[in-house]
Amino acid sequence: MMKFELGCHLVYSIYEPSTFVFNIGVVHNQHQQVEQEKLQIYPRLEIEEYNAPFSGNRYLRLNAPKCQMEVSYQATVKVNHCFQDPHQIREVTPANLPLEILPLLLPSRYCQSDKLINLALSEFGNLSLGYSRVTGICNWIYEKVTYLSGSSNPHTSAYDTATERVGVCRDFAHLGIAFCRALNIPARFVTSYAYGLNPPDFHACFEAYLGDRWYLFDPTRLVPQTGIIRIGTGRDAADVSFATIFGTVEMNEMSLSMQPLPDPNTGKVGQPFSTTEAISIS
Amino acid sequence: MMKFELGCHLVYSIYEPSTFVFNIGVVHNQHQQVEQEKLQIYPRLEIEEYNAPFSGNRYLRLNAPKCQMEVSYQATVKVNHCFQDPHQIREVTPANLPLEILPLLLPSRYCQSDKLINLALSEFGNLSLGYSRVTGICNWIYEKVTYLSGSSNPHTSAYDTATERVGVCRDFAHLGIAFCRALNIPARFVTSYAYGLNPPDFHACFEAYLGDRWYLFDPTRLVPQTGIIRIGTGRDAADVSFATIFGTVEMNEMSLSMQPLPDPNTGKVGQPFSTTEAISIS
Amino acid sequence: MMKFELGCHLVYSIYEPSTFVFNIGVVHNQHQQVEQEKLQIYPRLEIEEYNAPFSGNRYLRLNAPKCQMEVSYQATVKVNHCFQDPHQIREVTPANLPLEILPLLLPSRYCQSDKLINLALSEFGNLSLGYSRVTGICNWIYEKVTYLSGSSNPHTSAYDTATERVGVCRDFAHLGIAFCRALNIPARFVTSYAYGLNPPDFHACFEAYLGDRWYLFDPTRLVPQTGIIRIGTGRDAADVSFATIFGTVEMNEMSLSMQPLPDPNTGKVGQPFSTTEAISIS
Amino acid sequence: MMKFELGCHLVYSIYEPSTFVFNIGVVHNQHQQVEQEKLQIYPRLEIEEYNAPFSGNRYLRLNAPKCQMEVSYQATVKVNHCFQDPHQIREVTPANLPLEILPLLLPSRYCQSDKLINLALSEFGNLSLGYSRVTGICNWIYEKVTYLSGSSNPHTSAYDTATERVGVCRDFAHLGIAFCRALNIPARFVTSYAYGLNPPDFHACFEAYLGDRWYLFDPTRLVPQTGIIRIGTGRDAADVSFATIFGTVEMNEMSLSMQPLPDPNTGKVGQPFSTTEAISIS
Repeated sequence: MMKFELGCHLVYSIYEPSTFVFNIGVVHNQHQQVEQEKLQIYPRLEIEEYNAPFSGNRYLRLNAPKCQMEVSYQATVKVNHCFQDPHQIREVTPANLPLEILPLLLPSRYCQSDKLINLALSEFGNLSLGYSRVTGICNWIYEKVTYLSGSSNPHTSAYDTATERVGVCRDFAHLGIAFCRALNIPARFVTSYAYGLNPPDFHACFEAYLGDRWYLFDPTRLVPQTGIIRIGTGRDAADVSFATIFGTVEMNEMSLSMQPLPDPNTGKVGQPFSTTEAISIS
Repeated sequence: MMKFELGCHLVYSIYEPSTFVFNIGVVHNQHQQVEQEKLQIYPRLEIEEYNAPFSGNRYLRLNAPKCQMEVSYQATVKVNHCFQDPHQIREVTPANLPLEILPLLLPSRYCQSDKLINLALSEFGNLSLGYSRVTGICNWIYEKVTYLSGSSNPHTSAYDTATERVGVCRDFAHLGIAFCRALNIPARFVTSYAYGLNPPDFHACFEAYLGDRWYLFDPTRLVPQTGIIRIGTGRDAADVSFATIFGTVEMNEMSLSMQPLPDPNTGKVGQPFSTTEAISIS
Repeated sequence: MMKFELGCHLVYSIYEPSTFVFNIGVVHNQHQQVEQEKLQIYPRLEIEEYNAPFSGNRYLRLNAPKCQMEVSYQATVKVNHCFQDPHQIREVTPANLPLEILPLLLPSRYCQSDKLINLALSEFGNLSLGYSRVTGICNWIYEKVTYLSGSSNPHTSAYDTATERVGVCRDFAHLGIAFCRALNIPARFVTSYAYGLNPPDFHACFEAYLGDRWYLFDPTRLVPQTGIIRIGTGRDAADVSFATIFGTVEMNEMSLSMQPLPDPNTGKVGQPFSTTEAISIS
Repeated sequence: MMKFELGCHLVYSIYEPSTFVFNIGVVHNQHQQVEQEKLQIYPRLEIEEYNAPFSGNRYLRLNAPKCQMEVSYQATVKVNHCFQDPHQIREVTPANLPLEILPLLLPSRYCQSDKLINLALSEFGNLSLGYSRVTGICNWIYEKVTYLSGSSNPHTSAYDTATERVGVCRDFAHLGIAFCRALNIPARFVTSYAYGLNPPDFHACFEAYLGDRWYLFDPTRLVPQTGIIRIGTGRDAADVSFATIFGTVEMNEMSLSMQPLPDPNTGKVGQPFSTTEAISIS
């Protein structure tokens, strides 16, 4: 068990009445218990909340007038990671996957798995099946793709990154997902708060469905995996942008914070750590 | 009210144990009442059925051994079209759209609306808002894109078709969807049985969300709109392929049939017709 | 006849021994007579000059050590434009084109004319043949593509611009060239000094081969055509970059200047002007 | 010294007056001595020949009426290969390359070397410089790209093949060229007659400029290198299509033949062989 206080603060100049759909709230599930949570909007605006049925993603819609708007989200979250021995975790064939998971095998806007099948088979087709094959994919990405801020743009997709070999966390995740799907391993995009990211920012990684659940993978190796708190999951970045905006708007400020809190029982502060065990928070 | 008998017959050579996910069954909803329905598989195989929650799409999973497999689907369907005066149908702003519909504004694998915004604004930005703008999009596609069998492949996307200006029904639908989403009109891909298609085949068109429902649009003008019976809806073709196959398989035969039946009350056979009214079957 | 004094000043920080190929010198031909010309490099370095056979492009190669390097080019140029009545200028069929011009019908890195044939035929196939068809292409680009600094990058090509509808002078020229070649009109990329460009910068436009020579076209309408002094011509921007650099180098400064000088006979300063006549300087 | 008799026979149905530019004649140079050569066209048509200055490519232009046209080319060629020890052959830096060769470092339509720099550096950046690095590139392509007839189309480029990992000889050559240029090694596309190709067809491979000349590389390993007789060289396939056609034309037949002839001095027939020595015929 670990406990974190985390949050974000966003400031926008809104030049005409505009609609925002935010996806910044931590997902509530058995692994992530939210003890306290506070959302503040200035000016005060009506908020509609929509919890997506499968993913549990928490979308907030705001219709804002011309104004300067501030959005603050703050939460205290207890995380119970599920740790597993990677050697015991097997791939599940399409014959046996839960039917509602099959869509996560399909290509999506930024994960053109249909065009990466030969590449995936050539690079990973001979690896032994199971959790370790997805680790192999992450190692490949870590070794062959350069992490470089500003090197990609919102249109950049896995098809580009496979060849251009440079990108940011979002691109690393898209490529990991595309490779998994090309090998018939369901995979989905994860947005998160992440402890230790420097400079602080929203983080992106991915989950692959193996055995009987979704396991977390982060090919960037930028942060300790146990410091990742899940916000949303989707087919790719399009589904879980922290802010989808309809209108003429400028973002003036974005700051994120995250710190471990003491365990109420032991009084000890749990430091996020890296691990070679398999981790699930879904 | 119209009534149709329709079906398909598919024959596959299966060279190794393979998994099929079929999406060939007519959707059941208030507009499409299925009176009789029969699915036959030779050899006899266990079938799992999954009705997707939002779309109502009916997916069938089959795990087949090495064999020659035949799949036959036959149904009798009563269709009650919802007809509306196009002039009364308005666009709905992102501020007012039902929240569960917002994902249909996002770009998808074959509908890269994020890259078509300038083109869409330049071509359709000055049209009056409402149903007629989507008609304008369909007219543009019909006039500027050549329908040519075999001119595209499974990787072809709206981004390609916007420039290459040639394609089949699937490409026409993808481009219509991408343009709609680029203009903040939710749109989704529709697969269907279609009366009068020559040669008989599965058909693709699209729906746009306007007013308070999904309206049907077919930029190919290949068939009378009232002869379209909906199978599945999705973000794009990836979601609703009539057969998603995992394994080494060859399709040997595909035949479709569709014919209007007499109305039991009047005894009269209703002929599908074209109309300038807005039609919804969702 | 017009006369200009023009030049550029470039400053680089060179972090390791590097090779530069500059293409900044005005081309010498019957329409452009260079009266004075001065190239200065600090520190003093050996320069190799290569005048490409067909184009007359003047490439300068410099091998520079780790240093701060300044390159200054200054020239006085007399321009005799060839003006023609556009209505008299016809397209030349591939059957009659000079054979050495045929390569300018082929697709190139940034001008994928092979993928734009349908689009070009659909938009320009019905225009009357001749000079006015290329004017039609330029008008189309001017009207449908937004000029926006920073909207494209060095990888952007005509195929992108055709759909994304935004770009800079280089992208406008690439699209014009691609459309021409798709219609079997030879076209080539032109880099130039241009009077009145604000902020001052190297300019890009294109030439199409019509009648018996290369005519100048500028779909950006940013400057008066008679104020364009040609540097290089090539298949596309790759051929005539003002600086192709091999090494780790940063550009610290780039400034350009251009001003009309008095005619020695009349003493009158000729002001560059826009015209609807056809202009050739090749 | 080897000697070959080779040729091609092409039959076209021409539906309207059309222009052809053929590039089917063997290049004449110090390594390829053409002893006899015969070109026959039915019906008899005027032919214009253009020998391109640098490459020596021999283009033939024909303006044909509506007709059935047959083109036959037959030649007897003596080849003197230049064999070199690969270990002695070094790369030439851009600082020292002959200036007229620099354009072969630039990206072209089907060889987007500008987008493959990171991939090339990651895969080949650590190899020792020289001839063996290009061999490394060819081995990589041979091992990672599947040769499959019909898997690509005329729009397929190196950027696609790098990721899709399937193609034909043309795609193999484009990828080899793009990798070389990305590493600052000049490279050009080669079309050829090739002994032992089954089924007989025109062949494509590439040349890289190393040491003081152009060396031949064929990543397909489909034929013995000494059985390759050069037709044309260019930036990529666009420059040296065996037939560039303007008009509505159907190709009905294409047959090629090639056989070794006895050495007039020894009477012995030289069999083309594979070799690990470096070969140049340019």
